[in-house]
Amino acid sequence: MNPSSRPPGSGPRRARQLYEATLSQLAEHGYDGLTIEGVAAASTVNKTTIYRWWRSKDELLTDALIGSDSLNLAVPDTGSLRGDLIGLVAEARRMLTSPDTAPTVAAAFAAAASRPALATMVKRFFADRLEREQVVFQRAVDRGELAADVDRQAVMDLLIGALWLRVMFRDEPVDEDFDGQVVDLVLAGVEQHRDRGAR
Amino acid sequence: MNPSSRPPGSGPRRARQLYEATLSQLAEHGYDGLTIEGVAAASTVNKTTIYRWWRSKDELLTDALIGSDSLNLAVPDTGSLRGDLIGLVAEARRMLTSPDTAPTVAAAFAAAASRPALATMVKRFFADRLEREQVVFQRAVDRGELAADVDRQAVMDLLIGALWLRVMFRDEPVDEDFDGQVVDLVLAGVEQHRDRGAR
Repeated sequence: MNPSSRPPGSGPRRARQLYEATLSQLAEHGYDGLTIEGVAAASTVNKTTIYRWWRSKDELLTDALIGSDSLNLAVPDTGSLRGDLIGLVAEARRMLTSPDTAPTVAAAFAAAASRPALATMVKRFFADRLEREQVVFQRAVDRGELAADVDRQAVMDLLIGALWLRVMFRDEPVDEDFDGQVVDLVLAGVEQHRDRGAR
Repeated sequence: MNPSSRPPGSGPRRARQLYEATLSQLAEHGYDGLTIEGVAAASTVNKTTIYRWWRSKDELLTDALIGSDSLNLAVPDTGSLRGDLIGLVAEARRMLTSPDTAPTVAAAFAAAASRPALATMVKRFFADRLEREQVVFQRAVDRGELAADVDRQAVMDLLIGALWLRVMFRDEPVDEDFDGQVVDLVLAGVEQHRDRGAR
């Protein structure tokens, strides 16, 4: 069984508490220092129970990244594609900059490039996100705001990639002006794509 | 003296060889395993000579990231902003995917988010890049292709950020089609900005 395909709620009752403990342990000790034993100690769920559901720390961490409340993706529904995309960027921005989540994000995503096990988890995290983001694009297509053939993944890669580069590599402060700026740049590109297609 | 502001060529004669040895040691042993001693052994430049120019491994690594041939930024001059940006993305793509450079990039940049010393170096690397990329935008302004007030850093953040996300996080293959796709999306946005400004 693939643990990540388990329906929400069918894991152990205290799955959410375990997920948060897993992410805290990751932020505190790094990927190499993360152990099922440590998570058990931090969460008061015993080791045997954890192993009943997850065969390895990688499986637990994958589920924690995708299923935790703190890294959860609230999909906005503002009535416009612009509003929804700004909401998605704002949420990702808070995740990359908030003291509650930034250390987890750094520990999990920043190290993914050099660790195959982490890379697989991060890949699944982003695939899961894109799947949940689809509704934003679909609603925009239904409203006639967006051409159906726009590459949605490219749009998200541009927005979230720009945010990552600005925060993680350039180490510059970002605020809601940034969200609006990058969304407007990308949306102007997407609209021109639509206009060209309509001609 | 700030070692990174030293003019090229005024360092030790074998600076370039040292830079490559530094990046190889980084790729092989990670940031924590990188030592001046190791670089000395790998480069046949003796330790005392290295310490004459760089007080610490961080100073040496900063200069290596910015000054090495393998991570060097060849600024294209194709006659169009589109061609130049595609060239810049293509070069960054090769750097992120080539077996010669990808391990170095992963070791240096991927870990930057969680290590303050590395973060400072990466920040300087990107600032140096942006400075060298300015000529591409300036030429486009001079040719009338680009509004002078377009945020050049935002354009580069979108392009290189999208590349980073696609390669490092989504772990998907990228080729020259990707370069053209993201450049066209962003340029369409930039052009609409210009058209709006002209109205």
